[in-house]
Amino acid sequence: LEGDVHRYNFRDMGRRTRQLANALQKLGVEPGDTVGTIAWNGYRHMELYYAVPGIEAVYHTINPRLSAEQLAFVINHAEDKYIFVEAMFLPLLEAIGEQIPGVQGVVVLCEADALPDSSLPGLVSYEALLASESDEFEWPEFDEDTACGLCYTSGTTGKPKGVLYSHRAIVLQAMSTALALELSSSDSVLMIVPMFHVNGWTLPFVAALIGAKVVLPGKDLDGASVWDMLTREEVTFSAGVPTVWQMLLGFLQEEGKDLPQLERIVIGGSAAPRSMLEVFENQYYVEPLHAWGMTETTSMGTSPSILPRIREQGAEPVMQARISQGHKVFGAELKIIDEEGERVPEDGKHPGRLCIRGWAIASAYFKNESTDEFLEGGWFDTGDIATLDDSGYMRITDRAKDLIKSGGEWISSIDLENAALSCPGVAAAAVIGLPHPKWDERPLLIAVRAPGSEPAEQEILDCLASKVAKWWLPDAIVFVDDLPLGATGKVNKLALREQFSGFDGLRATEA
Amino acid sequence: LEGDVHRYNFRDMGRRTRQLANALQKLGVEPGDTVGTIAWNGYRHMELYYAVPGIEAVYHTINPRLSAEQLAFVINHAEDKYIFVEAMFLPLLEAIGEQIPGVQGVVVLCEADALPDSSLPGLVSYEALLASESDEFEWPEFDEDTACGLCYTSGTTGKPKGVLYSHRAIVLQAMSTALALELSSSDSVLMIVPMFHVNGWTLPFVAALIGAKVVLPGKDLDGASVWDMLTREEVTFSAGVPTVWQMLLGFLQEEGKDLPQLERIVIGGSAAPRSMLEVFENQYYVEPLHAWGMTETTSMGTSPSILPRIREQGAEPVMQARISQGHKVFGAELKIIDEEGERVPEDGKHPGRLCIRGWAIASAYFKNESTDEFLEGGWFDTGDIATLDDSGYMRITDRAKDLIKSGGEWISSIDLENAALSCPGVAAAAVIGLPHPKWDERPLLIAVRAPGSEPAEQEILDCLASKVAKWWLPDAIVFVDDLPLGATGKVNKLALREQFSGFDGLRATEA
Repeated sequence: LEGDVHRYNFRDMGRRTRQLANALQKLGVEPGDTVGTIAWNGYRHMELYYAVPGIEAVYHTINPRLSAEQLAFVINHAEDKYIFVEAMFLPLLEAIGEQIPGVQGVVVLCEADALPDSSLPGLVSYEALLASESDEFEWPEFDEDTACGLCYTSGTTGKPKGVLYSHRAIVLQAMSTALALELSSSDSVLMIVPMFHVNGWTLPFVAALIGAKVVLPGKDLDGASVWDMLTREEVTFSAGVPTVWQMLLGFLQEEGKDLPQLERIVIGGSAAPRSMLEVFENQYYVEPLHAWGMTETTSMGTSPSILPRIREQGAEPVMQARISQGHKVFGAELKIIDEEGERVPEDGKHPGRLCIRGWAIASAYFKNESTDEFLEGGWFDTGDIATLDDSGYMRITDRAKDLIKSGGEWISSIDLENAALSCPGVAAAAVIGLPHPKWDERPLLIAVRAPGSEPAEQEILDCLASKVAKWWLPDAIVFVDDLPLGATGKVNKLALREQFSGFDGLRATEA
Repeated sequence: LEGDVHRYNFRDMGRRTRQLANALQKLGVEPGDTVGTIAWNGYRHMELYYAVPGIEAVYHTINPRLSAEQLAFVINHAEDKYIFVEAMFLPLLEAIGEQIPGVQGVVVLCEADALPDSSLPGLVSYEALLASESDEFEWPEFDEDTACGLCYTSGTTGKPKGVLYSHRAIVLQAMSTALALELSSSDSVLMIVPMFHVNGWTLPFVAALIGAKVVLPGKDLDGASVWDMLTREEVTFSAGVPTVWQMLLGFLQEEGKDLPQLERIVIGGSAAPRSMLEVFENQYYVEPLHAWGMTETTSMGTSPSILPRIREQGAEPVMQARISQGHKVFGAELKIIDEEGERVPEDGKHPGRLCIRGWAIASAYFKNESTDEFLEGGWFDTGDIATLDDSGYMRITDRAKDLIKSGGEWISSIDLENAALSCPGVAAAAVIGLPHPKWDERPLLIAVRAPGSEPAEQEILDCLASKVAKWWLPDAIVFVDDLPLGATGKVNKLALREQFSGFDGLRATEA
């Protein structure tokens, strides 16, 4: 983040983490207190991941892309006592300084001489805080059910809801994740997935648990920067959202570069199109692992590993398994249910509401906000619509609220988006349902053209016609320069629905 | 075991395990009851590993090599309600039928029509027991601290002591073991390590947890049988004691065979000589993994993985790490202490008593027999003498009681045995200390000559002289046809000490 590469080993990290623990106690952070972080993936953030829960306090990772209103809401709701913030995010706090009276101090993640001027009182730099502290610290012992971390879902609807993670859940989930990803100490792990979101998929803990090398990328996640880190640090494994991988692929294709060391990548956060999986596997010889998780599942709820019985069946069944969101991780159970709560057949064909339960699955939201999602028997209703097949592979067909109901039948916006992405000249695509007098709802495709491409609406419709049922064809295609992204980098469908609420260009569709 | 290969998948196993659970309940097995097993590694034993703890009862794995007296002792001490026994081990029970009045019934692990005649009343075959049962069963839910398994240390001194394992310890240790061994669903695992000993190193649970193929070898562990299974079942990973691997190497060398599919083997249970590690690595391209565990550590207390920082140092440091017993598994801590209980330096040079603690380490023996081994702070004193180095690798230099004290200095019997094994013509070696008027104790080497070799005493002494300090040289070498083995296949040093207690052939040693 400061222009150079900071390089150290776990022993050094341990030393600084103990200094930080001493510093936190001097600041008055006590067991049960909450400490906010607004930070990129960097070594100081990693130290906070260990020191804060190590003294029985709770790290609250805050998404810097939240709106000012959401930011103030989560800081107050979490009752953050201190906030550790990247210098570049300081203005976010300055803008809401009056609205977060409970915060006793702000620590800027920088060197002592790099402390920015600020309207916030009593700022201190992270390095000044550590400088005077001893690196001897006796870690306290306490109950495993003690709170360890807190993260808010940055839902596109309603107020953010907090999920409080226990030490027990984090340890178990880190072990499950290490097993699910088949990581070992010989891996070099580029952690693109942000540490401010869902515990960085618990990778900060997995890496220490197995002794892998960790590469923390800071803020630059464009194709060139990611390729540079992959190459320079001989990265064997990485994890990130489709957007990041799409940028990397763009860079590779433009610059004619390869990925000789990279062995496997996890693509998660939202569904990846088949075309992306195929390019990674067949053109760059990188195994694409498609996984799924939510704030409420601590990190990954599914494992992307391809079971031997699938491998034996050949390339297409393997690709179908890759397109799926994987099978449950050890310690979790999945089921899909209908509107009445009854299980639907697990044959890969019948979609239903996806529910999950297990030792690392939330059983409530922080302070018991909203209880609708928590069903009898410890099941969490994810709000996703999915199928499960005979081998346990789960495939999300849609978010419940993103399904489009047309003439009494469901259209999957995800399937339609993936079909559009496979058409020439389409760089990004989002599908929303618009009200329709005859059919109830009809799909609108909002597309971003690839640079140098000018596909016409009819060309895309022709392409789609070969891939989806005729009644699925969008009633209109709108071209835009960019799709609006939410705080976690996913397409913000709520914003699209608002933007196009008055759209009247739908064709009359004949079914 | 019955001459053919039984082949099924985990779903079939689940079905039969549910039938077994129903059968156990009909037999009157209740929560907290103990069920003994005297069995080889086979699929019925695997079903017992799941069904018995699944209904909240406790599996008690019994070593068939125990003496009649020990057998009766452990069955009565464990209060076994039923015993499931391999047909070939039935005579063991018949011999002590009168002495185990608490046992309500014996189930023979065979087909209905293969039930042997027996003096024991009310025998039933395993398959007859299952045949009439439904494969529907609702597994009960209960506390994770509930007892799951019981195993007795088959110590060469004193009465066997029981270790009771909780479900929690077994699950956590199985996860740690899977991580430590870097096992995945693409592995084919030949489980040579006996399921009647230390939960089969938890591999029966690891395999299901990760979805690996399991090969259960039954009773034939000679070189030809093991090679046949490795080859036929495309085994990638196996685990066993040095004796088994020595037999395999003998077969490979005699028959000129290779190990093309096998990738890694764990050598555990007792220390492997460097020569064995080298032959596997350099001649057969199989990575030898040296690990350590005890009945009291649930399965492996150490992981054999070679850390990147060691790999970077080249072949000899890697071999030194392989010769060590590995570094602690996740969830365990190691320390070495002196006679006063103080930590000794962890520099790979200072030996001390090895202690271990963690979530899967025993905190007491069953029914609180013997408490000397359990120290303050949750530490278990293993009775091993070991060093720890700066990278955390542990190396056992001796059993505390096997150290030889000569002229106020310690001689390591293990080091001396390994040195002897590297001399031409020595197939097996054991060193014990004999009382000596001047030096307190002096070493006696008891050796087995390799087939076709006739090394003279002086040749071996000359060879040893190039490898160990002069005052370590044994005062006599005795050649025998076989070394006595204890119940777990380790050399029975107690028997050797008794056998050679009157030995008077020691030379007068000049230091």
